[in-house]
Amino acid sequence: RARIGEVVESTRFQWMIICVIVVNAITLGAETSPALVEKHGDLLGTIDHLALAIFVAELAARLYAFGWRFFRDPWNVFDFVIVAVALLPAAGPLSVLRSMRILRALRLVAMVPSMRRVVTALVKSVPGLISLTGLLTLLLYVGGVIASNLFGDTGDPRFAGLGPTLLTLFQITTGDGWSDVMRDLMVHQPLAWIFFLCYLMVGTFTMLNLFIAVVCSAMES
Amino acid sequence: RARIGEVVESTRFQWMIICVIVVNAITLGAETSPALVEKHGDLLGTIDHLALAIFVAELAARLYAFGWRFFRDPWNVFDFVIVAVALLPAAGPLSVLRSMRILRALRLVAMVPSMRRVVTALVKSVPGLISLTGLLTLLLYVGGVIASNLFGDTGDPRFAGLGPTLLTLFQITTGDGWSDVMRDLMVHQPLAWIFFLCYLMVGTFTMLNLFIAVVCSAMES
Amino acid sequence: RARIGEVVESTRFQWMIICVIVVNAITLGAETSPALVEKHGDLLGTIDHLALAIFVAELAARLYAFGWRFFRDPWNVFDFVIVAVALLPAAGPLSVLRSMRILRALRLVAMVPSMRRVVTALVKSVPGLISLTGLLTLLLYVGGVIASNLFGDTGDPRFAGLGPTLLTLFQITTGDGWSDVMRDLMVHQPLAWIFFLCYLMVGTFTMLNLFIAVVCSAMES
Amino acid sequence: RARIGEVVESTRFQWMIICVIVVNAITLGAETSPALVEKHGDLLGTIDHLALAIFVAELAARLYAFGWRFFRDPWNVFDFVIVAVALLPAAGPLSVLRSMRILRALRLVAMVPSMRRVVTALVKSVPGLISLTGLLTLLLYVGGVIASNLFGDTGDPRFAGLGPTLLTLFQITTGDGWSDVMRDLMVHQPLAWIFFLCYLMVGTFTMLNLFIAVVCSAMES
Ligand code: NA
Ligand code: NA
Repeated sequence: RARIGEVVESTRFQWMIICVIVVNAITLGAETSPALVEKHGDLLGTIDHLALAIFVAELAARLYAFGWRFFRDPWNVFDFVIVAVALLPAAGPLSVLRSMRILRALRLVAMVPSMRRVVTALVKSVPGLISLTGLLTLLLYVGGVIASNLFGDTGDPRFAGLGPTLLTLFQITTGDGWSDVMRDLMVHQPLAWIFFLCYLMVGTFTMLNLFIAVVCSAMES
Repeated sequence: RARIGEVVESTRFQWMIICVIVVNAITLGAETSPALVEKHGDLLGTIDHLALAIFVAELAARLYAFGWRFFRDPWNVFDFVIVAVALLPAAGPLSVLRSMRILRALRLVAMVPSMRRVVTALVKSVPGLISLTGLLTLLLYVGGVIASNLFGDTGDPRFAGLGPTLLTLFQITTGDGWSDVMRDLMVHQPLAWIFFLCYLMVGTFTMLNLFIAVVCSAMES
Repeated sequence: RARIGEVVESTRFQWMIICVIVVNAITLGAETSPALVEKHGDLLGTIDHLALAIFVAELAARLYAFGWRFFRDPWNVFDFVIVAVALLPAAGPLSVLRSMRILRALRLVAMVPSMRRVVTALVKSVPGLISLTGLLTLLLYVGGVIASNLFGDTGDPRFAGLGPTLLTLFQITTGDGWSDVMRDLMVHQPLAWIFFLCYLMVGTFTMLNLFIAVVCSAMES
Repeated sequence: RARIGEVVESTRFQWMIICVIVVNAITLGAETSPALVEKHGDLLGTIDHLALAIFVAELAARLYAFGWRFFRDPWNVFDFVIVAVALLPAAGPLSVLRSMRILRALRLVAMVPSMRRVVTALVKSVPGLISLTGLLTLLLYVGGVIASNLFGDTGDPRFAGLGPTLLTLFQITTGDGWSDVMRDLMVHQPLAWIFFLCYLMVGTFTMLNLFIAVVCSAMES
């Protein structure tokens, strides 16, 4: 058991796994081309199955070697979920999971120490942002209900119902094409600019502070 | 009186109010869907009236318990205004207030301590920005009068009068579709790019400094 | 002479000048509306001439009181230029100067201490940015000549000549509608994306560092 | 040899080279205008050849004076590559190199000390960003393969194949027109917004951290 643990954690073994991940990522990229699939579809499929088999074997080895301790490391849990999802039958409503196979490439992050450190830093900055993210979500919801009430009757498909309205407000928050949305509405409701001005100012100001919170927490660490 | 104050400030009571706010926010969201209103309109209306009644009772209890001290806390003033507005008859020119009922959901901010802290920090950063905001407003007005004079005769509806021009300049400040506006003008006035270049540079530089002022004041505290 | 200096610098006199500036700014704004000009054109014109007369008198008084020392304060030079420009005959090729009369409103910045401090800080941050701005201008020129050579033959009016190309590259630097420009070019030149990718990366990276230079210099002071 | 080294490094000689670079940059800019080429094409071509001859002579002199030490300074290597590329025959597939002659203007950066310092600082900040840039590239690739699988069948040319999809995702990362792309896709795949929301959030959050890493490393130095 300790012997298997040593093998699994050896540099040579890790490099082999990195190679398998990279090769698999390339073949999954190649599978997006109908021309390549027609020509080398069998080869690509075989490599994909082989890579999955190696991942399963590696995971089984690590599970056997470390037992329940395996699940204490969140990166291991990440690897486990990725491989488990890949083993689900990708048929019917689950066929979208076939597209998700490329998520295996994210295992690279766990394998390369410098990337691992970057992502760990990213993830650690999340809890400090929960309050502000909650506030932004609340603002989005409140703005969405108001906009639904004000602009729902204009016949603009971007405000037809709460769902589309929330999506449109998210678009406005990112600043992409907000003036087009506003000018289209102002044909029917000349005062629509008041809503847009208020929403943009409150939203941008809050986003700016979310941003500053990220910067500050990053600088402390 | 002290007894009522204790009840009103008890954790259990606060949680109940949070529940009422959340339920009311959901029903107000549901009311944006004509299908749901047709099916369960009566239920949604009843819940809305019930929630308002609870808010009024809670506010009355807090007003009775704390007397005029109630108005010393700005968060209480916020609650009071929200509920008072909800009691106004939403008919005629005031029908827009019906859309504003969802603002009650913002009471959540006052109830959840971590959000309350975030918003307090946001509001405290405002006074330090008044000078720069005033400067930006002055720049917008000066730019608006110049653009009205230069481009008012081109027939472009985005520059027809001082109001639309100010709105267009605000759009340009946010960077959304400014090149389309400029290219449309350059058909009539080939030198329009000079105005846009100057305005974008001065505006962006000032905005950048407004931003830095926010960051600096945030880092000190 | 000292007496006049005292009067000119008294708080009451300064407040009067501030009032004149604000009133003049409002009438110049009103003059952008053809309807208002038709109704009250005479009144607006009279106020404008009166305001200019007051500014000239004030400037003459300050010049007489302080002599050549007057020009040592850059804010005084600013006031002098604004008023001198207003006295030029606004006819023929100079008619654009009529639109510039509103720049007088910027005298407010010199009158209000808090705004004056903000603008002084803005202006002081400029010298530290000259090298980076020079670098950005050089990059823009180099990119403009390359883009002119590569895309000049496609018939796209946005790349017809060095001038329009430089304007288009400036637009791309601000990120507004760059993908539309690229996709239009890729119809004729499928490899156009290489230029856009390189330019956006180098440009954004340099801009980011320009921004950081501003932040750093702002934080030191 | 030492004599030539002295001459080449003298202020007067350096100013002469700067003049040649500037004049050459202007003539290369003038060559983008067909009208100017028709009128003064011979003159422009002669100046260009003369400038190249001077650059070659200067480089030869510096190579002779400093020997292999010449290549120790990366700025010299930069000069060498620029001139060497200019000597390649610009025919057939290499005709694009003709457009690159303007890159010689970047030699200015090496000649002006203040610009040299700025660019040295820029280049030095690159190594600290490799991990995050690698992570962003990985995210782009993973997102590209998923988007190819999900949206490849919609017939949208922006998702026809892995290459165009990667370009479209890069566009979405810069925030330019992402809502248009999404709304076009949602006609065929109503759930496309889920992908865009996830990609924008993960991408923006990572970019934000890339930005903070640049700021932090800049502030330490
Ligand atoms: Na944009
Ligand atoms: Na846009």
